[in-house]
Amino acid sequence: MVTRVGILGARGYAALELIKILLRHAGVEIAVLTSRQPEQLHVCQVHPQLAGRLDCELEQFNLEALVGNVDVVFSCLPHAASAEVVSQLVDAGIKVIDFSADYRLNDVDVYKHWYEVDHPDPGRVGKVPYGLPELYREQIRGASLVANPGCYPTSAALPLVPLVRAGLVSSAGIVIDSKSGVSGAGRTPKMGTLFPECNESISAYGIGAHRHTPEINQLLSAAAGEDVEVVFTPHLVPMNRGILTTAYADLATDASEQELMEVLQAAYGDEPFVQVVEGLPATSHVAGTNYCHLTARRVGNKVVLVSCLDNLVKGAAGAAVQNYNLLMGLDETTGLVDGAVI
Amino acid sequence: MVTRVGILGARGYAALELIKILLRHAGVEIAVLTSRQPEQLHVCQVHPQLAGRLDCELEQFNLEALVGNVDVVFSCLPHAASAEVVSQLVDAGIKVIDFSADYRLNDVDVYKHWYEVDHPDPGRVGKVPYGLPELYREQIRGASLVANPGCYPTSAALPLVPLVRAGLVSSAGIVIDSKSGVSGAGRTPKMGTLFPECNESISAYGIGAHRHTPEINQLLSAAAGEDVEVVFTPHLVPMNRGILTTAYADLATDASEQELMEVLQAAYGDEPFVQVVEGLPATSHVAGTNYCHLTARRVGNKVVLVSCLDNLVKGAAGAAVQNYNLLMGLDETTGLVDGAVI
Amino acid sequence: MVTRVGILGARGYAALELIKILLRHAGVEIAVLTSRQPEQLHVCQVHPQLAGRLDCELEQFNLEALVGNVDVVFSCLPHAASAEVVSQLVDAGIKVIDFSADYRLNDVDVYKHWYEVDHPDPGRVGKVPYGLPELYREQIRGASLVANPGCYPTSAALPLVPLVRAGLVSSAGIVIDSKSGVSGAGRTPKMGTLFPECNESISAYGIGAHRHTPEINQLLSAAAGEDVEVVFTPHLVPMNRGILTTAYADLATDASEQELMEVLQAAYGDEPFVQVVEGLPATSHVAGTNYCHLTARRVGNKVVLVSCLDNLVKGAAGAAVQNYNLLMGLDETTGLVDGAVI
Amino acid sequence: MVTRVGILGARGYAALELIKILLRHAGVEIAVLTSRQPEQLHVCQVHPQLAGRLDCELEQFNLEALVGNVDVVFSCLPHAASAEVVSQLVDAGIKVIDFSADYRLNDVDVYKHWYEVDHPDPGRVGKVPYGLPELYREQIRGASLVANPGCYPTSAALPLVPLVRAGLVSSAGIVIDSKSGVSGAGRTPKMGTLFPECNESISAYGIGAHRHTPEINQLLSAAAGEDVEVVFTPHLVPMNRGILTTAYADLATDASEQELMEVLQAAYGDEPFVQVVEGLPATSHVAGTNYCHLTARRVGNKVVLVSCLDNLVKGAAGAAVQNYNLLMGLDETTGLVDGAVI
Repeated sequence: MVTRVGILGARGYAALELIKILLRHAGVEIAVLTSRQPEQLHVCQVHPQLAGRLDCELEQFNLEALVGNVDVVFSCLPHAASAEVVSQLVDAGIKVIDFSADYRLNDVDVYKHWYEVDHPDPGRVGKVPYGLPELYREQIRGASLVANPGCYPTSAALPLVPLVRAGLVSSAGIVIDSKSGVSGAGRTPKMGTLFPECNESISAYGIGAHRHTPEINQLLSAAAGEDVEVVFTPHLVPMNRGILTTAYADLATDASEQELMEVLQAAYGDEPFVQVVEGLPATSHVAGTNYCHLTARRVGNKVVLVSCLDNLVKGAAGAAVQNYNLLMGLDETTGLVDGAVI
Repeated sequence: MVTRVGILGARGYAALELIKILLRHAGVEIAVLTSRQPEQLHVCQVHPQLAGRLDCELEQFNLEALVGNVDVVFSCLPHAASAEVVSQLVDAGIKVIDFSADYRLNDVDVYKHWYEVDHPDPGRVGKVPYGLPELYREQIRGASLVANPGCYPTSAALPLVPLVRAGLVSSAGIVIDSKSGVSGAGRTPKMGTLFPECNESISAYGIGAHRHTPEINQLLSAAAGEDVEVVFTPHLVPMNRGILTTAYADLATDASEQELMEVLQAAYGDEPFVQVVEGLPATSHVAGTNYCHLTARRVGNKVVLVSCLDNLVKGAAGAAVQNYNLLMGLDETTGLVDGAVI
Repeated sequence: MVTRVGILGARGYAALELIKILLRHAGVEIAVLTSRQPEQLHVCQVHPQLAGRLDCELEQFNLEALVGNVDVVFSCLPHAASAEVVSQLVDAGIKVIDFSADYRLNDVDVYKHWYEVDHPDPGRVGKVPYGLPELYREQIRGASLVANPGCYPTSAALPLVPLVRAGLVSSAGIVIDSKSGVSGAGRTPKMGTLFPECNESISAYGIGAHRHTPEINQLLSAAAGEDVEVVFTPHLVPMNRGILTTAYADLATDASEQELMEVLQAAYGDEPFVQVVEGLPATSHVAGTNYCHLTARRVGNKVVLVSCLDNLVKGAAGAAVQNYNLLMGLDETTGLVDGAVI
Repeated sequence: MVTRVGILGARGYAALELIKILLRHAGVEIAVLTSRQPEQLHVCQVHPQLAGRLDCELEQFNLEALVGNVDVVFSCLPHAASAEVVSQLVDAGIKVIDFSADYRLNDVDVYKHWYEVDHPDPGRVGKVPYGLPELYREQIRGASLVANPGCYPTSAALPLVPLVRAGLVSSAGIVIDSKSGVSGAGRTPKMGTLFPECNESISAYGIGAHRHTPEINQLLSAAAGEDVEVVFTPHLVPMNRGILTTAYADLATDASEQELMEVLQAAYGDEPFVQVVEGLPATSHVAGTNYCHLTARRVGNKVVLVSCLDNLVKGAAGAAVQNYNLLMGLDETTGLVDGAVI
């Protein structure tokens, strides 16, 4: 039995990654790809990687053409544009996994503050599960709409949440210093992401102002049971894919490095995609996979947590397929192990 | 039914790639990994990418430990060292796919000239099929030993052979200008492949002297039915993986660009892994896959052929699994489509 | 005595390189920078590299503001746009070094064929010296307008011209396979030069159709004394700066490799910026400098020439200052040795 | 009047950078280059970048050959090896700028703890000026031996020291998250710095254990007037050169972002090489130069400081020439502005 899926906004990097995973996913048929660009292009003109692997055109979005034709939609549209369409699809009975930020935050005012737009579908805000299965697996199962997480929040929450939940670290004064490859900045031409601007350079951006900040705060506040406000600094690194997050928190107890590691191992020992490793993670260790590697070090009275993941896989398309598997009652790892998805 | 396999020389880049493909290959169990390094290390200390995916130690090579334990061996040992071991394995009834150059050349004198060593197993030279299924599929099926091709020869032979065979290009004066990522230089520490030496730089090396030259000549001579000697210039490009080959040949007839393309399409229309593309190939289009993209352009009285492949996959581990599938009577694409193997 | 100079089109990579060289050039004052963008920006907003080094605004081009204010103009405007302005400046008595292709080709029809536009200043075509001092030094001295060469033509002509002039190679069938860093594609946002599109990839482009082809043909035809048509294939390499050219030509005599090298050494022994090297050149050897390294290898009946230069220096801004020095009667190396200009 | 200098350990990246700066430095003659490698090589075999620019051989170190022959020595030898030689040179009346860590720490026990070796020249420890002119200019002038600073300590101390001195930030709990290019790891072949290991990857290393930690603590303790212990995490970034440091400190007062910036501007307004910038620094803004760009942002109750410099220039060879100029009573910027030194 095959499930027919549609992908909205199929020109970008996360969409290409999704297509490649779905091509390996038994039981999925990619039925519709849409793009907001006017020209009708063959998918291989947009993604030459798919030569001989997928044969279809990118179409303009058309609700009628989707209803009755696809069972599930992955929306890779930008925020606000996504919710406008997603709400129609869900109303029409189509299950949706939304890559945008539209349903991640629980509060429309916070959304408006950070995204500077009124939420197009306020009625669903706060009722959509946050698609990080390691934290919210039960809410995702059987949902009709899932908010696929931000790449930075996943990389920050996975190492921090178990220690925050266990009360081992103070929830005040947490510093999250993240480093991302350039694919995270998207495929729209901008001077700042031209090759000669990024290559042989590292820079910080959006200090204290990045839109993933409230998402991280929401995840950690839930874990702490109180309001948490982190200092979050993203950096742009001259590589295509990967996020490394180095997080710093004050110890609330005198826990040893070994005890900190044991808490992480207890949290993730049964998780298929989170590996608590002894050595120091590198993004190349997880590139092209749905894994997140993480570890802890104690330095003085602080814990230093290091995590890494592939921003396009565990940070986007891989997480989406993990959520898809949960939505559809499949084994959560279908199409995602072993091997990889470049 | 599961086939147990061993991998010799498992510390390198091609071996890691092979492990990742085999982990996705239903019906294969990785039973033994060997290394010539004295310390006994867990595979995840050598390849942190495999955390949670493979749990075994690298062992010293031991013929007795392999016989009766594994059905097939992939040898990723260097030339000469490989043939010494391979000959024993084949004698013991183990099927072998040899990544080294030892069984690729048909003539022990040519081998000695280029590799500066007496061939350790001269009796088999010239009797082992060259493992490029697109050219030698029937010889590979049912063989007990296959010589896995060099990465450059594959990238050069796939575009050139159909035109040479069809007599459309002169076999004299062919120029092959290849560009390779640095993983092709191996994982042994050398100053020349340190990051600061390679990054932000491109260089030519081994002009007229690269050991893949006789292998290319042998493939094209077979296609031409006469001795062919190419001018082959490899270059080192600041990227991890990928080979782009630009080949130049004099037209022997007045064939149009379209006719040249049609000959390529006729040759590869049914091939699962060779895609004749209209646009210009880029190595990123095939990275992490077993595909080779190629195309032709006519400029004046010459044809310019451009091909690309991933040197670690179609140029090494992917080709090896293609050969494995043929040896074992499996579908040739098992474990290799769709998706990828980074 | 200080010469006041203006730079038109000062936002791009070559302009930045030019500014950095001129800041070290005793006797030059950067008096005016122009840009065609509407916003008036401080030069450090456009080029943060210049913080504390240059303090001025980018202005809109204004002929009146330049006449009487500057002695020399460097035009980094695109083709056609450049000649429109340059002709006015020269008429007004300002000396100009033009980075565009407008005055490089000697024939307005060839110009129109390749640039698909009528030449805006046809009367000067064919009368402007081509600014490659190693070939046309005497014509450049004392000129009022110089056509600064293309980066690829410089890298191809320097190794080939001495051998063509000496009749050592056939002028028919020359293949030029060039590899360039991405800064050569300019600073205007385009999807094709985004970091994730270029990184970890090499590709050929413009095969047989690149606009530097007629420029190379013109240089080699002049050297050969007969019409030469090369096959020229440029490639895009994942690095910021640098061009490596590998050129292939049929030997016309039985010259040895040593004789070929001697001809090159004789041609360039007194040149300050061309180094005939024994080893194989790499672009990192010349990055940030005005040097061109080149060498020759004989393979069968062909010579393989390898040259490298920094496309932004010897391929653009450094050559421009070399020309400036000649125009002004200064030592040709002023501001260009030793050290470098990143 | 020309000063004759020697460079010990001339094969590495910092030594090459130093040579390139000194070639532009009027008044310096490079008289001796030494290497600990047995083969006697021409400097252009070791550094092909110097073709046509420097003509000499690398020699074995020989005290007698230096005394009376050179006035100043730059030692690029590793720690412990450096002090053994430096002490002899200083005793013989030669001025020395030492790139190693040997004379940076004021306490032989701290040195032994971190470097795991007895100090070879304990008598001078604590009496040698730390060569960061922005902090210790007066001590450097007229000294006979200067300890050239570590690259990370320079990048951390320059933004932090003015705020610590002013009492604006707490000296407890400071987090320093630094990101370095790979040239910082040296030119000795190691698997960890091979191109394919570093490219497309970022990783943390030496968390809480990097040998620059005590050097940072010493600098900040001096500024604070009390013992400071930072949490320092270095990262390896896929680029050749550059360090970006992001430092986090708790505000001790309610200073606004503007006030924090004003303190930095007051500290560095007259410094030739430190630029307090409004925008966010990137390592490409300072590559190849002796500049350090830095800025401050307030986020909640913390200040986030970002600084960048070129680890081979301001972090090594450029700082050494700055120190040389001070030692010799020259203008501090000689040979270092404008332009750059790649």
